[in-house]
Amino acid sequence: MATIDYSGIIPPIPTPFKDGQLAIGALQANVEKWCRTGIRGILALGSNGEYVYLSNAEKLEVVRAVVAAAPKDRLIMVGSGCEGTAQTLRLTSDLAHIGAQAALVVTPAYYGGQMTTAALMRHYETVADGSPIPVLLYNVPKFTHINLSPEIVVHLSAHPNIVGIKDSSGNVSQLAEYLHRVPADFSVLVGTAGALYGALSLGCAGGILALANIAPRICIQIFDAVRSGDHETASRLQRRIVAVNTAVTATYGVGGLKAALDMLGYFGGDPRPPLLPPSGKDRDEIRRILAAAELI
Amino acid sequence: MATIDYSGIIPPIPTPFKDGQLAIGALQANVEKWCRTGIRGILALGSNGEYVYLSNAEKLEVVRAVVAAAPKDRLIMVGSGCEGTAQTLRLTSDLAHIGAQAALVVTPAYYGGQMTTAALMRHYETVADGSPIPVLLYNVPKFTHINLSPEIVVHLSAHPNIVGIKDSSGNVSQLAEYLHRVPADFSVLVGTAGALYGALSLGCAGGILALANIAPRICIQIFDAVRSGDHETASRLQRRIVAVNTAVTATYGVGGLKAALDMLGYFGGDPRPPLLPPSGKDRDEIRRILAAAELI
Amino acid sequence: MATIDYSGIIPPIPTPFKDGQLAIGALQANVEKWCRTGIRGILALGSNGEYVYLSNAEKLEVVRAVVAAAPKDRLIMVGSGCEGTAQTLRLTSDLAHIGAQAALVVTPAYYGGQMTTAALMRHYETVADGSPIPVLLYNVPKFTHINLSPEIVVHLSAHPNIVGIKDSSGNVSQLAEYLHRVPADFSVLVGTAGALYGALSLGCAGGILALANIAPRICIQIFDAVRSGDHETASRLQRRIVAVNTAVTATYGVGGLKAALDMLGYFGGDPRPPLLPPSGKDRDEIRRILAAAELI
Amino acid sequence: MATIDYSGIIPPIPTPFKDGQLAIGALQANVEKWCRTGIRGILALGSNGEYVYLSNAEKLEVVRAVVAAAPKDRLIMVGSGCEGTAQTLRLTSDLAHIGAQAALVVTPAYYGGQMTTAALMRHYETVADGSPIPVLLYNVPKFTHINLSPEIVVHLSAHPNIVGIKDSSGNVSQLAEYLHRVPADFSVLVGTAGALYGALSLGCAGGILALANIAPRICIQIFDAVRSGDHETASRLQRRIVAVNTAVTATYGVGGLKAALDMLGYFGGDPRPPLLPPSGKDRDEIRRILAAAELI
Repeated sequence: MATIDYSGIIPPIPTPFKDGQLAIGALQANVEKWCRTGIRGILALGSNGEYVYLSNAEKLEVVRAVVAAAPKDRLIMVGSGCEGTAQTLRLTSDLAHIGAQAALVVTPAYYGGQMTTAALMRHYETVADGSPIPVLLYNVPKFTHINLSPEIVVHLSAHPNIVGIKDSSGNVSQLAEYLHRVPADFSVLVGTAGALYGALSLGCAGGILALANIAPRICIQIFDAVRSGDHETASRLQRRIVAVNTAVTATYGVGGLKAALDMLGYFGGDPRPPLLPPSGKDRDEIRRILAAAELI
Repeated sequence: MATIDYSGIIPPIPTPFKDGQLAIGALQANVEKWCRTGIRGILALGSNGEYVYLSNAEKLEVVRAVVAAAPKDRLIMVGSGCEGTAQTLRLTSDLAHIGAQAALVVTPAYYGGQMTTAALMRHYETVADGSPIPVLLYNVPKFTHINLSPEIVVHLSAHPNIVGIKDSSGNVSQLAEYLHRVPADFSVLVGTAGALYGALSLGCAGGILALANIAPRICIQIFDAVRSGDHETASRLQRRIVAVNTAVTATYGVGGLKAALDMLGYFGGDPRPPLLPPSGKDRDEIRRILAAAELI
Repeated sequence: MATIDYSGIIPPIPTPFKDGQLAIGALQANVEKWCRTGIRGILALGSNGEYVYLSNAEKLEVVRAVVAAAPKDRLIMVGSGCEGTAQTLRLTSDLAHIGAQAALVVTPAYYGGQMTTAALMRHYETVADGSPIPVLLYNVPKFTHINLSPEIVVHLSAHPNIVGIKDSSGNVSQLAEYLHRVPADFSVLVGTAGALYGALSLGCAGGILALANIAPRICIQIFDAVRSGDHETASRLQRRIVAVNTAVTATYGVGGLKAALDMLGYFGGDPRPPLLPPSGKDRDEIRRILAAAELI
Repeated sequence: MATIDYSGIIPPIPTPFKDGQLAIGALQANVEKWCRTGIRGILALGSNGEYVYLSNAEKLEVVRAVVAAAPKDRLIMVGSGCEGTAQTLRLTSDLAHIGAQAALVVTPAYYGGQMTTAALMRHYETVADGSPIPVLLYNVPKFTHINLSPEIVVHLSAHPNIVGIKDSSGNVSQLAEYLHRVPADFSVLVGTAGALYGALSLGCAGGILALANIAPRICIQIFDAVRSGDHETASRLQRRIVAVNTAVTATYGVGGLKAALDMLGYFGGDPRPPLLPPSGKDRDEIRRILAAAELI
């Protein structure tokens, strides 16, 4: 298996619905549009993909459609984490067989007090042992209330089939500690756009960012600027996008992200309940923020 | 539809596995044994039932087995909550059609920041509108990091098909506030054994308690003592069980509960990964605690 | 030293200010009025006493005034906890010398991560070793973000000069565990009115409750009802006061409590900044709640 | 009043004690030693200065000693925040009169639920209105469990006597949002060494860092490298110090920091109880970490 390059900007794409059902055509049109911006690849079935509201059959349908729509040179990463270890392994294998190239595995979280270091290590090792594709850890305490400590990450980074992490904790000290202690070929990807420039400067390989759905070009510009040593541009762009990021992705959640996509020429649509779409007033505010950031 | 009486003690039963697969015979033997103790009914597919590790097909298999094994006069309640509203409604209907009599619906939790009062109310109302069986709310902030405020509970208690709540917050002030403000026919059930006596004294209809799996008779004695006004007995028994409850259910989780069941003549077995079974040392401690409480 | 009886209802009194300065006359008038209701004693300098906004000189002035105003048969307890061990010991001694009979010592909290079991035990033991008056532990996680575990409480309950605890965690399971494991002469006092009846039924000696400032007679009725075995009355009264308690003490804080006192014929006045007094709209709501509970 | 330049590296110095009493000679020797490293100034009475364990008289004594020991070109900043607004204003004035040049004011925190946006704004505005020296906000959620939102910081940054913020949240997205929205002459200083490079790259003016006590020269090298555009050096040094920072300042707290100082030729000594000094085993670990980072 040739080594995959995970560096670059990857949008964790939403899953579009019409009347509550998968809108596959809209999904493929979105993917084609994103892929014209210079992104490294696509993450399907992540938190912004409402993976918790999809059946396994729907997850397969989404990934089949993304694989078909994306150019061959783009990385297709998929969120395949479930609460159970066996469930996760089965879904990861199923998604690999239809073309997923890498699996992003969220920390199991329901029995939070029992998700000890030993339990988390064994979960990831079992999945990585059995997975036909490389595994990346997914640390997102905002949703899981679990943090993957540097101790766990460093330990797992030695596994031959665990190749990286997406860290959405927003904690750059922790990113720096990961980077200091993992092997050079273990890819640390930042998951919060507000920390993109800081993370890339520290040596992160790239970013998987909700913001990359609505401002892929600016995220790529920050990535390129850091690569070429133009820190002034990177810092300026970073400060420009932070308000958009806070507003659209944190305040309004997936519903806000989808509404912004509708304003930007993608298909957004409504999230599945219990997520609520933004109100008319919220949409006005989103439009105002996008305009202030010169995105529309 | 005749009104169901939810008062009494109900164990939220674990799901037994052999070699990682459902152990239906063991499950049915357990159910028969619990039903000889005077419990009001069975909760299948609750948090102690590892519902997050079961496929929908397995959930149906579990409930079919419980319905077949339990005497007809026992209440069969099932955990049917999923992250999505549509998923929840579908599973609730499927479980109702095979004999479940009431559905316990956990709060959706993944997108915690978006689970506003409005989102939660709409979720429960949609599920209750469509469910063929009565719905109970399930508030378990320890696992979900979401709390069902009195405001939400009072509002939902007016829905004709929302008939009660299992509250596992451990917060008796909140229980008292629920009780003060909901209709008399809305059943408030306590979900933490440490608060059993306090909750029953305040007017709770009953308890759905992990501890009722391993000490059903003591839980029933507390229930009966409060009913008959013998508060001294109730208080004494409550203080006796609190250490068992803390140790077995809080410290050691589902794995500890299953180990205790093995020591008590039920089939416990191991939990599914990522949950780990207790170590040999932990098992010794569990045995010691059960012995100290005169349960073995 | 004769053993002190801590059982009964004790209001943790606010400190009245006029133009930001101590209003000693008003304080003494309040104390006299409370003492006509059958309360066991007074807690001065507790959380509701805004002790964090008082200088040591002011603390002494408050306690001198309370000692002078209260009948001799009432217990004068004082909040004497500071962040530092030496500071706490010095203040406790100073307050003892002017008539305080028992010291309520809050957990030090600023360096939360360093407040280990060992650090907390040594803090309390050092204070208790040197204090001329008995010490009670004060567990109030809402303000301190520190919880005194049963392990710590049980250990400290063996100290001859540590005689009790005020627990404001609202966690009745924890209260039950304390009660089960401490010596019979160690007084467990509940600090949240919402849990009063539940706590007394379990065997708590009494309550130190913000609500006892505004509804002392109802709190005393609950206490007496439990003592005499009239659980129905206790339960009914408990459910009646829970809304008042939530609204006045939790929602509106010290400012709300003081506003309620003004409506009830005590002197309330404004809290010290940064605490803000309730708005006109909030005052209307407080008045409405007091009226609904038939307190005005 | 000439405008003060807050840019650079500032150690938040510990307060040395001998037999529990202020060790003024040791304090002054430390200050002289730090000032030979190129630091911008000194922060006395910060969290690492154990300010919560000092009386007001001791606070004055510490600041007098620091003012006397430091060269005239160094900034003398002091932690003057208390829980009360009036207390804070009085202490700030007293410290200004003996030579403090700027006041770092921590968020009041005890009544956390009441520390609303309005309450915090009024607190800071009142202090800034009355303070004879410029005021900086101090955001340290780790200790206070309060976060100064961008909304509050942006509002307060318009006050003529509020000149900056020390942010110890570790959240670089928030730093970026502050930087994007405050006036150019409002100094945003980072308070966590793990985020130093990321923060400086984004445009922060400097850092007030526990680590600057034990590795001032490396912190200054990072600052200088970012100033001169040498991001490679800055990133490399940042990754080198992150382990030291985590270990010494987070894991072992003030006691660990003091032990490290003893190993580095400064006077450290023991913290005041309830803080415990590190055990012999912990000291060995601290020594090992300092050696691994080539600090000893």
